[in-house]
Amino acid sequence: MFGKFLIMGYTRFRRRVIRNTVTSVKWVMKNKQFPLFVLAGGLFTNEAHAQGKQQQDLNSLIKSFMAEPLTSRSVLEKDADEMRTKMELLIMRIQAEFCHAIEKEENEFPTKFRVDRWTRDDGGGGVTCIIQDGHVFEKAGVNVSVVHGTLPPGAVAQMKSRGREFKGDSLPFYALGISSVIHPRNPYVPTIHFNYRYFEVKTDTGVEWWFGGGTDLTPYYLNEKDAVHFHSTLKRACDKHGAEWYPKFKAWCDKYFSIPHRGERRGIGGIFFDDLDEPNKESAFNFVTSCAEAVIPSYIPLVQQHKTDGYGLKEREWQLLRRGRYVEFNLIYDRGTKFGLYTPGARYESILMSLPLTARWEYMHSPTKGSEELKLTEILKNPKDWVSC
Amino acid sequence: MFGKFLIMGYTRFRRRVIRNTVTSVKWVMKNKQFPLFVLAGGLFTNEAHAQGKQQQDLNSLIKSFMAEPLTSRSVLEKDADEMRTKMELLIMRIQAEFCHAIEKEENEFPTKFRVDRWTRDDGGGGVTCIIQDGHVFEKAGVNVSVVHGTLPPGAVAQMKSRGREFKGDSLPFYALGISSVIHPRNPYVPTIHFNYRYFEVKTDTGVEWWFGGGTDLTPYYLNEKDAVHFHSTLKRACDKHGAEWYPKFKAWCDKYFSIPHRGERRGIGGIFFDDLDEPNKESAFNFVTSCAEAVIPSYIPLVQQHKTDGYGLKEREWQLLRRGRYVEFNLIYDRGTKFGLYTPGARYESILMSLPLTARWEYMHSPTKGSEELKLTEILKNPKDWVSC
Repeated sequence: MFGKFLIMGYTRFRRRVIRNTVTSVKWVMKNKQFPLFVLAGGLFTNEAHAQGKQQQDLNSLIKSFMAEPLTSRSVLEKDADEMRTKMELLIMRIQAEFCHAIEKEENEFPTKFRVDRWTRDDGGGGVTCIIQDGHVFEKAGVNVSVVHGTLPPGAVAQMKSRGREFKGDSLPFYALGISSVIHPRNPYVPTIHFNYRYFEVKTDTGVEWWFGGGTDLTPYYLNEKDAVHFHSTLKRACDKHGAEWYPKFKAWCDKYFSIPHRGERRGIGGIFFDDLDEPNKESAFNFVTSCAEAVIPSYIPLVQQHKTDGYGLKEREWQLLRRGRYVEFNLIYDRGTKFGLYTPGARYESILMSLPLTARWEYMHSPTKGSEELKLTEILKNPKDWVSC
Repeated sequence: MFGKFLIMGYTRFRRRVIRNTVTSVKWVMKNKQFPLFVLAGGLFTNEAHAQGKQQQDLNSLIKSFMAEPLTSRSVLEKDADEMRTKMELLIMRIQAEFCHAIEKEENEFPTKFRVDRWTRDDGGGGVTCIIQDGHVFEKAGVNVSVVHGTLPPGAVAQMKSRGREFKGDSLPFYALGISSVIHPRNPYVPTIHFNYRYFEVKTDTGVEWWFGGGTDLTPYYLNEKDAVHFHSTLKRACDKHGAEWYPKFKAWCDKYFSIPHRGERRGIGGIFFDDLDEPNKESAFNFVTSCAEAVIPSYIPLVQQHKTDGYGLKEREWQLLRRGRYVEFNLIYDRGTKFGLYTPGARYESILMSLPLTARWEYMHSPTKGSEELKLTEILKNPKDWVSC
């Protein structure tokens, strides 16, 4: 399917270049402006060269993606300076890089991502990449979606409840994002989640835009060195753009990934932010780019280090119980999941790919005193700072 | 613990009878009304006899319960005519009868319910009975709760969204209910859920009351004979009180236990109702009693018939996938779960006992054509009438 889209894209691109050339020659012949013809020909050659270079760059970038982008190549070229184009190309690139890094860890029993490119009746679509029942990864999902249409009143209300005061009940919107959850098989390898997104809403008073996102880690056993490595990597990515971001977004992450009925955090946090619309669109995009590029160096070393650690039934059962908590957070509290499931025509398989292959609920389970399981629980109840700011 | 409460209750009861007798004799002696003494003595004997009989009945009823009721025996005696008392005694009785019926099915490898009687800081408490990892039942939970206090504004808002127009933001309330979910191990034995509850809210304009409840079945494989038996039993219970109830509450059940994002029902339904406040309190209570008493005859025969059916890994994995859907419904859509988890000081272990021991999520799982799994899915997408009305 991937190949088919590449071929379709290239054919469209060729047709357009030929059509452009023919039109120019016809115009010159008709107007008999021969001196201009030479000039026009020269300009066309330069323009065509620049355009051709741009197309070549785009094509070679797209070749590295898991599938054809959701927006057509011609629109991506035409709207190259639009933030939505930049964001679509960023999330497609990050998806491919992360999927390849994950596949590389499955080297012993090679496993490739299943790639589903899907479209949405009401506008847009996505690319969902999944490994299920792999050797290293029990379930790994990396999803990109580029969705547009009219925001249903329920979704507008949800935005409003977050402090955004839109005028109007049904508003045109454009939402792009990458979202990923990796559930490894070995209980000593943590689960990672990351999500980076860009939103545009056209209101009566103009276009509102903002970025959101974050990366967070959910270990089953606490390894302090890993926690420090993970948080330091995120901090370095944030610090490039200002010292204030990491502490602010680390605190926000601890607050967001909370399971209030259990008085626990989902994991040991990371960074989380929403409604980011400062200092300006370009700078915010650069910040998001740095964060998204920090995912691989923050996580893959932990996979490499622990994927062959020995474990038994006790560790596996604890992992499954913790995955039950993961399900609780995602289905009860996560705004993204709720927003997705309540959006008509949403592709629920892509939203629910975040759920683990298996989860477990035991009545009144409580880790024994002095155990490694209790050590983790204590940290989930009282999150700590892993790097000094 | 159960024994301790029985003993405490009996001691309190004896002390009260002795105190009453002594007071009566003292009063007669002091007033020297001898002719009246005989009369009073006679009256007292009759009264004491009636009271003693009532106490004896209450004590012997309580003896059959899984634990001491949440309300003290003296209050239960004093408020014998209050609906909250009748309802508490009903749900405690139904809990015990159902738990014993479940335990009876575990006869090959005898397993008893773990009984946790708990109290709530803000008022009331509950009795949670659990079998976990049994031979026949992978997880079986039967919970009674008797909760009172002040309804938090969030809960008031939720009531209002359902059409009840209360005046005031924080209102005194009294809520009693029994709730049960039974997840058997054998995929040919369906999961059952039932819940019967009574609610009182004191508003500025008086006391509002209503009943709610229902019983519904979630099979993993469709057995039409079982479906007919289950629905017929519920229909018979409803029909005793009027021919209109079963069809109305059957349709409500299909509507309520819906997983909109999957376009499926959770199971093959049963009955469901809420806000029942007609034709009057007594009749509504009698209706609820009939429904609650129909649980055992509707379900236990299915357990007996299928608990030793042969099955393999394929059937087990399908069961776990369907249990994933059960978790989705309970955590995303179920009003009772949400109401519980958002109530401050709620005992989440009792609310979440409804979750299965194990559940599974596979990306894009779809039953093969002509399979038994597909046959069930079709019914979940298009619920049918199992008995003619």
